[in-house]
Amino acid sequence: MHRLLIYNTTILTEDESTQTYKVIPKGYLFLEDNYISQIGEGAAPSLLSEKATNVNGENLLIMPGLVNTHGHSAMSLLRSYADDLPLMKWLQEKIWPVEARLSEEEVYWGTLLSIVEMIRSGTTTFTDLYFFMEEAAKAVEESGIRAVLSEGLLGILESSDKALEYTKNLHENWHGAANGRISIILGPHALFTCPPDFMEQVLGISRERNMPIQIHLSETKEEFENAKKSNGKSPTRILADLGILDQSVIAAHCVHINEEDMDIIAEKNVGVAHNPGSNLKLGSGIAPVVDMLKKGIKVGIGTDGASSNNNLDMFEEMRLAALIPKGFYQDPTLIPAPKALEMATFLGAKVLSLDKVGKIKEGYHADLIGVNLDSPRMRPSHNLISSVVYSATGADVELVTVNGRLLMEKGKLLTLDEERITARSEELAKKLVGQA
Amino acid sequence: MHRLLIYNTTILTEDESTQTYKVIPKGYLFLEDNYISQIGEGAAPSLLSEKATNVNGENLLIMPGLVNTHGHSAMSLLRSYADDLPLMKWLQEKIWPVEARLSEEEVYWGTLLSIVEMIRSGTTTFTDLYFFMEEAAKAVEESGIRAVLSEGLLGILESSDKALEYTKNLHENWHGAANGRISIILGPHALFTCPPDFMEQVLGISRERNMPIQIHLSETKEEFENAKKSNGKSPTRILADLGILDQSVIAAHCVHINEEDMDIIAEKNVGVAHNPGSNLKLGSGIAPVVDMLKKGIKVGIGTDGASSNNNLDMFEEMRLAALIPKGFYQDPTLIPAPKALEMATFLGAKVLSLDKVGKIKEGYHADLIGVNLDSPRMRPSHNLISSVVYSATGADVELVTVNGRLLMEKGKLLTLDEERITARSEELAKKLVGQA
Repeated sequence: MHRLLIYNTTILTEDESTQTYKVIPKGYLFLEDNYISQIGEGAAPSLLSEKATNVNGENLLIMPGLVNTHGHSAMSLLRSYADDLPLMKWLQEKIWPVEARLSEEEVYWGTLLSIVEMIRSGTTTFTDLYFFMEEAAKAVEESGIRAVLSEGLLGILESSDKALEYTKNLHENWHGAANGRISIILGPHALFTCPPDFMEQVLGISRERNMPIQIHLSETKEEFENAKKSNGKSPTRILADLGILDQSVIAAHCVHINEEDMDIIAEKNVGVAHNPGSNLKLGSGIAPVVDMLKKGIKVGIGTDGASSNNNLDMFEEMRLAALIPKGFYQDPTLIPAPKALEMATFLGAKVLSLDKVGKIKEGYHADLIGVNLDSPRMRPSHNLISSVVYSATGADVELVTVNGRLLMEKGKLLTLDEERITARSEELAKKLVGQA
Repeated sequence: MHRLLIYNTTILTEDESTQTYKVIPKGYLFLEDNYISQIGEGAAPSLLSEKATNVNGENLLIMPGLVNTHGHSAMSLLRSYADDLPLMKWLQEKIWPVEARLSEEEVYWGTLLSIVEMIRSGTTTFTDLYFFMEEAAKAVEESGIRAVLSEGLLGILESSDKALEYTKNLHENWHGAANGRISIILGPHALFTCPPDFMEQVLGISRERNMPIQIHLSETKEEFENAKKSNGKSPTRILADLGILDQSVIAAHCVHINEEDMDIIAEKNVGVAHNPGSNLKLGSGIAPVVDMLKKGIKVGIGTDGASSNNNLDMFEEMRLAALIPKGFYQDPTLIPAPKALEMATFLGAKVLSLDKVGKIKEGYHADLIGVNLDSPRMRPSHNLISSVVYSATGADVELVTVNGRLLMEKGKLLTLDEERITARSEELAKKLVGQA
């Protein structure tokens, strides 16, 4: 049984009665095995400190770790490789040719590189949809982070069946592994790359194994219009008619959705992974998040891959989620700070079907981060939630635990060899794009 | 004569023939007094290293310091004090009552606090429009940063004349002071707070002393529509008709401007301070920066005050300037990375009428920053300009010089007592808003 006590610290927890955020200016947290077992005000009882590893949380705000609901981790290798290009040119001339050369080794190291960046910037759970996901699973196991992994499925390739088999094996070998930190789900890439008969097969596996499905949905105007043109239906309606949305589904992007689509998404309880930075950078557009939230849709936040972002800082993404609607609709009251924080934490966990993740609360998984309150951009703070959402950057994170295990303390990574990972992945990245 | 040699470093300079950015993967810079006197590839000649202070620039990218073209520095004291509110409620119920209690002391310490944050995040020049600017000038002098300062002028108060006198004294005492690092300009707040007869007085002083003018212009839809309603003219047209735009003018925001306004701004060579983060957060809207640039308007970037941002990180602001138009117009080719970088550096300097600022080039002021290339979000880098614009955060900055003098090295501030400044300004901030 491992036990950790964080004492002398500021805590962002939940008020039991109102279920809103509450700050304990000075208190302690007692973590036992995977969970937060006690939160208290003032000094920690010596009974607790005696039986645990003690960490001084002075000048830190302990808050829930951030939950990244959409990404392609190993694409960190392609960070800054091809920017400011039209989408199809970016994909066809730059990304796809390189991805065709990918092997296990690149995915392993590229995923580790992303995990280094994510832990450093306060993400404790991430989602992945990419290739050779067994390698990603290994990286997750070693690092101590929590992840929801899916092998990317393209139904238009000869290798489609192989990828389905790969997913089944991945599920058998890795689902629930690493002390429950790894979940394996299905990852059909998108409707336009997965024809109906292929989606039927995906649906069958999802039903049989009770596996959630993640899919890119209505990311671009073109996708929406092409579906309408060839099917007379929106991509969301097509997915619903195929029966996919009766499963637990994570729909990434949802930029180009209409009123009817939102009603379907709400009714089917689909989780949406909102990627504000990537949607801007690739020119996809502004997702109607305000309307989705009004309809009670659960919306989480994601970074997408580092090649369309170009970093994995969820603080930045959370801030964008709060800022964009204010400017776009000219209304500063939209997506106030606490709502953005919920989206980046426990709403994201809900989107991923993760139970007891995303809050600093007794009985929740001990996935938490410590933000440096001495950082000049955090001083003064008249409102800590505002400071976290509007002022902080991932670089302000100094402490990270997942399942109660320390992954970073005083800005030092404890489970990963950062220098080796960056050097090796950089080497592979340069080879991959033909620069070495 | 002070001399600094930065050796063994990566340099983002300019290609002489094409006037586009060029990277020297390994080289040196020799700074003499206020200027960059030599840039070279490879190892530095011992002739240079012998007569200078030597700084090892390994793993740093030396690039131009960022130029913040609009802000209200001492508002850092109100960071996170009042967020997510409608604009008029924010101003009338929160900001103005607190500002009415401001004194010299708060402005001095609040400005220092902002300077700490700005130096730390790679800003080497900032602009200020606030009250008690003599205190700001003292803070600038002590810190070593470069600044363009203006006393905020409100033409609707009884104290209007006093503020004009204050400006004249400020100009006499501080313009060109601190080794040329301080410029004093005129700061009429906005047309709706400065009636025509007051603007006439401002214009007189501007002509007499050859002082540039900065003013908030067309920040909100309301401002534009009210002007149209009561004058039949846009705010920009009113300013032009008053003769103000015949002077050197910095127009902050310019969110709600029409085609004719842009033509006026272009013809009069007005500089625009674009504040993408604040424009989103306050719900002001999306400024037509793409159109302005097409018309040849010089556009710089600003953070605005920390209470409407809520940080002063120009890397974030530069990234927003590049990202927002891509998403808003659904075109990923708009504002490519090098253009955003220009806006955040030498275009900003042009907006502020600063000569030889904003480039790493021989003969330019030695205002430069070193970005940590080992930061995980910067690895790998296939394109350093992309990395700087889309991946970096202010926290990646490790070295800063202004006029060739080291203000930060290895992440340590050399001219300011950070701990004392944050403690004292926090104390004052809490008193100011009645929390202490």
